[in-house]
Amino acid sequence: MKKLKIGIAGLGRIGKIHLNNLLELNNVEVIAVMDPSFEAIKYAIGKGVELGLQNYKDLLEIKELEAIVICTPTNTHADYVEIAAKSGKHIFCEKPLDLNLQRINDVLKVVEKSKIKLMIGFNRRFDNEFCKVKSSVKSGFVGEPYLVKITSRDPAPPPIEYIKNSGGLFLDMTIHDFDMARFIVDKEIQEVYAKGEAFTDISISKAGDIDTAVIVLKYTDSTLAIIDNSRKAAYGYDQRLEVFGSKGMIQANNIMIDNNNLFTQNGVKSSLPMNFFIERYADAYKKEIIDFIDSVINNREVSVSGIDGLKSLQIGLAAKKSLKENRPVKVDEII
Amino acid sequence: MKKLKIGIAGLGRIGKIHLNNLLELNNVEVIAVMDPSFEAIKYAIGKGVELGLQNYKDLLEIKELEAIVICTPTNTHADYVEIAAKSGKHIFCEKPLDLNLQRINDVLKVVEKSKIKLMIGFNRRFDNEFCKVKSSVKSGFVGEPYLVKITSRDPAPPPIEYIKNSGGLFLDMTIHDFDMARFIVDKEIQEVYAKGEAFTDISISKAGDIDTAVIVLKYTDSTLAIIDNSRKAAYGYDQRLEVFGSKGMIQANNIMIDNNNLFTQNGVKSSLPMNFFIERYADAYKKEIIDFIDSVINNREVSVSGIDGLKSLQIGLAAKKSLKENRPVKVDEII
Amino acid sequence: MKKLKIGIAGLGRIGKIHLNNLLELNNVEVIAVMDPSFEAIKYAIGKGVELGLQNYKDLLEIKELEAIVICTPTNTHADYVEIAAKSGKHIFCEKPLDLNLQRINDVLKVVEKSKIKLMIGFNRRFDNEFCKVKSSVKSGFVGEPYLVKITSRDPAPPPIEYIKNSGGLFLDMTIHDFDMARFIVDKEIQEVYAKGEAFTDISISKAGDIDTAVIVLKYTDSTLAIIDNSRKAAYGYDQRLEVFGSKGMIQANNIMIDNNNLFTQNGVKSSLPMNFFIERYADAYKKEIIDFIDSVINNREVSVSGIDGLKSLQIGLAAKKSLKENRPVKVDEII
Amino acid sequence: MKKLKIGIAGLGRIGKIHLNNLLELNNVEVIAVMDPSFEAIKYAIGKGVELGLQNYKDLLEIKELEAIVICTPTNTHADYVEIAAKSGKHIFCEKPLDLNLQRINDVLKVVEKSKIKLMIGFNRRFDNEFCKVKSSVKSGFVGEPYLVKITSRDPAPPPIEYIKNSGGLFLDMTIHDFDMARFIVDKEIQEVYAKGEAFTDISISKAGDIDTAVIVLKYTDSTLAIIDNSRKAAYGYDQRLEVFGSKGMIQANNIMIDNNNLFTQNGVKSSLPMNFFIERYADAYKKEIIDFIDSVINNREVSVSGIDGLKSLQIGLAAKKSLKENRPVKVDEII
Repeated sequence: MKKLKIGIAGLGRIGKIHLNNLLELNNVEVIAVMDPSFEAIKYAIGKGVELGLQNYKDLLEIKELEAIVICTPTNTHADYVEIAAKSGKHIFCEKPLDLNLQRINDVLKVVEKSKIKLMIGFNRRFDNEFCKVKSSVKSGFVGEPYLVKITSRDPAPPPIEYIKNSGGLFLDMTIHDFDMARFIVDKEIQEVYAKGEAFTDISISKAGDIDTAVIVLKYTDSTLAIIDNSRKAAYGYDQRLEVFGSKGMIQANNIMIDNNNLFTQNGVKSSLPMNFFIERYADAYKKEIIDFIDSVINNREVSVSGIDGLKSLQIGLAAKKSLKENRPVKVDEII
Repeated sequence: MKKLKIGIAGLGRIGKIHLNNLLELNNVEVIAVMDPSFEAIKYAIGKGVELGLQNYKDLLEIKELEAIVICTPTNTHADYVEIAAKSGKHIFCEKPLDLNLQRINDVLKVVEKSKIKLMIGFNRRFDNEFCKVKSSVKSGFVGEPYLVKITSRDPAPPPIEYIKNSGGLFLDMTIHDFDMARFIVDKEIQEVYAKGEAFTDISISKAGDIDTAVIVLKYTDSTLAIIDNSRKAAYGYDQRLEVFGSKGMIQANNIMIDNNNLFTQNGVKSSLPMNFFIERYADAYKKEIIDFIDSVINNREVSVSGIDGLKSLQIGLAAKKSLKENRPVKVDEII
Repeated sequence: MKKLKIGIAGLGRIGKIHLNNLLELNNVEVIAVMDPSFEAIKYAIGKGVELGLQNYKDLLEIKELEAIVICTPTNTHADYVEIAAKSGKHIFCEKPLDLNLQRINDVLKVVEKSKIKLMIGFNRRFDNEFCKVKSSVKSGFVGEPYLVKITSRDPAPPPIEYIKNSGGLFLDMTIHDFDMARFIVDKEIQEVYAKGEAFTDISISKAGDIDTAVIVLKYTDSTLAIIDNSRKAAYGYDQRLEVFGSKGMIQANNIMIDNNNLFTQNGVKSSLPMNFFIERYADAYKKEIIDFIDSVINNREVSVSGIDGLKSLQIGLAAKKSLKENRPVKVDEII
Repeated sequence: MKKLKIGIAGLGRIGKIHLNNLLELNNVEVIAVMDPSFEAIKYAIGKGVELGLQNYKDLLEIKELEAIVICTPTNTHADYVEIAAKSGKHIFCEKPLDLNLQRINDVLKVVEKSKIKLMIGFNRRFDNEFCKVKSSVKSGFVGEPYLVKITSRDPAPPPIEYIKNSGGLFLDMTIHDFDMARFIVDKEIQEVYAKGEAFTDISISKAGDIDTAVIVLKYTDSTLAIIDNSRKAAYGYDQRLEVFGSKGMIQANNIMIDNNNLFTQNGVKSSLPMNFFIERYADAYKKEIIDFIDSVINNREVSVSGIDGLKSLQIGLAAKKSLKENRPVKVDEII
């Protein structure tokens, strides 16, 4: 069997996840990695990758390279995707493509012309809990959906320097939930109302960002959605979803660290939800990259397109505007 | 022991609940009931009540009557409270006092002058699940509250004629949740954003009402709350609450009909939540009326005041305005 | 409606439960109570009972008395039932009828001759959780039953003086589980193997009793059952049941004090099971006595017969023998 | 880093699990596999193993081979271990070592003389759920243990031919539970009482075996244990454990396929437990083989010794005797 020759740009936390998942696959060969850090390159070499580069363009010049996984910082995504598309490499790119809608539109045009595959990294679409909810919704088990509820809380905020460059809570964190809202019921968002506060850390507030948010979405067909977010849940990572419809309700609950229950005179004690995205979505990351490889090898449409990336950004920008102006904002106000 | 002599006006579903609960108490004597329906009066006589009247004023003329429980239709509440207050009878009145804020203000002035007790029937404040949440919040178990989430869904809408005179979903149904939002964290609401649709029944929409709603509340100290409502949950009565704060989260979950779990090849099957408010809040209704009686006998402040009734109505009116104008509405815009 | 005229003998903890439940019923009149303690009689008088006696025979001489509820100490049951039966009064008697099998047989003959109703107080048969399990088993939801599992643990042992006169753990506590084992699958027990220890208190061991036990039952058709007991569960009252069969398994789980869940950095904390039988089986006691009254009024067979009382005692005696001789004992070895 | 050179004998279901887990480790090299089936060898070659043999002795003649994983049929275990021990290879051997106690004793003597490591494959000791229970018990969270309860039910029986050669339910299936009973509280078993039936399949009964069993164990210090087994649970794989002690109780509950809950008018539906040991114990198998490799590389005692294998077999033989003679059997009766 011929193996797909792939490279990885960016070996931070997510880059390493993809590297390790790709190394387990039989139909892929990671022929090179790129990262400015020598330490990161050494990590990949130690795993058996033969070529480590510090410059993105050098990576793209490798002729036999067929596909690339982009996990570099957000502000490089658009350029890197453009370069790769022009070089005819298939692309898996972490979210978001860019924080500027026009820039994304331009990049997507380049991608379209180049005929390569571009998949955006919305990992939660591959999570077993959410896939089962989607499948139940599709099967009509809850009837016509009326309301989608998403709770997404992190155990702790990222460093303040990261936050400053993140585009803010809605573009960095809620963007996953915006994508989930579209994905879970296969419907588009029309209007956004967002409310938020910086409760946990004065530096977040000083950076002009928030750490706690509530967002109401209205789909084009009037279905409603609520998202609530926090950058800091004392009890860890909280990832819940609920779809309520004409025939019932389905919930995806947290996956707990274990299923032990301790009964003592003080009450019943059980374990917390799995701590953070690396553990919680370990399987989803695997399925995601397998799905990308499969779309390239079998020349089929990718599961998460550039348009998906664009749409969740657009909703995120609408949320930012809504928060600023304290009014519901139509998604198509954002252009 | 001297028993408090009490009368009940209105023997509908709620009136009968109060009647039966009062009949179980040792420190109360139900000396008369009033209802236009002969059937209803017969019901009370069958339970041992000696006097049944069809006219409210006749009831109020009973000299030895010390207190009255008002369960007549909403549009009579304000008048009946006024009359009772002027007669010097202590009053327990079902929510809402009235659908007009000014009218409530006027009534409350009369009540104040008369020095009688007036308690409003927000039964959920006496529910074990919610009381324990409140007590945990007060004890600081979740730290500083950031977000309150309330889910309140009915198994089926009331008759369309009832809906037409109900003041709409926010004043009839959500009003319980507005009160809960204030009660659970002991804070006041500043701003309301409401979104809603009539999904389940065209007649509700024709009546100008909605059956599904999402409401975002902002407290005066920036704490946030989300309420979601439905008039029709296929799986029954859904009453959940969650408070998320700096140190953790506490949830009040539904009470299920039973705790049986059936494991077969088709999955695990368990019971639905308790079907509707009469079963779900049976204990809360008992505690509520006991609490009212106790406030009268011991001459202490009532647990749920006329101001509480007024404030939840004000929030409800703000929600109505928000829905109509599709914008967040400050509670003090409503006067 | 004519009301059944009833008396209560014995106003201890259980007697008071029955008294209060009877006072709530419309088709019964508690015309007299009997208890050696003046305090207990005062309690009943305070509840509206008109006659209080200190002697059982005086109670039985009341002509209009139609039925009697016997809640006196175990060692009086057989005599009291005999006297009541001979007086033509219907009888509800707390378990066990006696600790001697021959004595029970004699009493049951008297009862049979007298044609009165005799119902034995196995309250758990009227518990919602267990009734639903039985009904599911009957409906074939778990197919052919293979194994019944019963867990029954008390929060704390009774006073040592009580234990000394109780007949031992198997006759005092497990007897409920023996009855449940028969009831839940409508089958008879053939063989018993019992193992037990006194772990919690040296005085229990000195009294020749145990506080922790495991009992294996074999039904006449080879279905198996396991019971485990403890006199002292640090976390309270533990009442679980499971039926495993050819098509699945059904469980009755504990009913918790509340459904709050508290999530903090230390884990998830939830409430303990309802503390003890008075709370846990409050509804069952009500249904039980209603059922007895109904059987008398409608002249139908009682739901729990003297034979049921006899059989669980016989199993209990087999368990005692098994523990002593450390071997499986056939129930019909006990005569 | 030097890699431990390892071989695998037997590439059935379990052999393949170990192969795949070993291939993921950095400190091991699988240099050869042995299986009579050409298909099985091809499977391993496809995974990158360079040498495939059809004869065990050929495998053992590889000089550089340092350790071996034995997954061949039970009746070869004793011989293969003996051969490997004499060749100075470290051994991981699937349970049971043999069905004959004397044979095991002889083998263990050979092992002892050879000074190689021998670890027995009791995979459940490495399961997260059970490890956490053991750790909680060790930490004293439940106080002094009084009762251990183990439920272990398979979704379907193995082929009847397998059953005929398996040594029977107690030696094939319950042996895991006997080991767990010892492991979870670090205590030895003194006495066994076993009861069982063939309910599900006449061919099992004809083969002289049972498919449903209840076993009562008494530890040397009087702690009690109950195990219940079934070869065929319609709802899948049921793996639960409970330790009850002076300060409380801890439970390890089943891990479910997912955490979705579907609420409809028919009730609440949720997922079944993970289907069978390959999925349920996937992580445990990984940790088990890592632990073995670690014990060899770091020259420390193995976590599951030959004595552990011997003791659970001894308990299993006692259970067989108990079932046959319908009496409690002391473990040291079995020699």
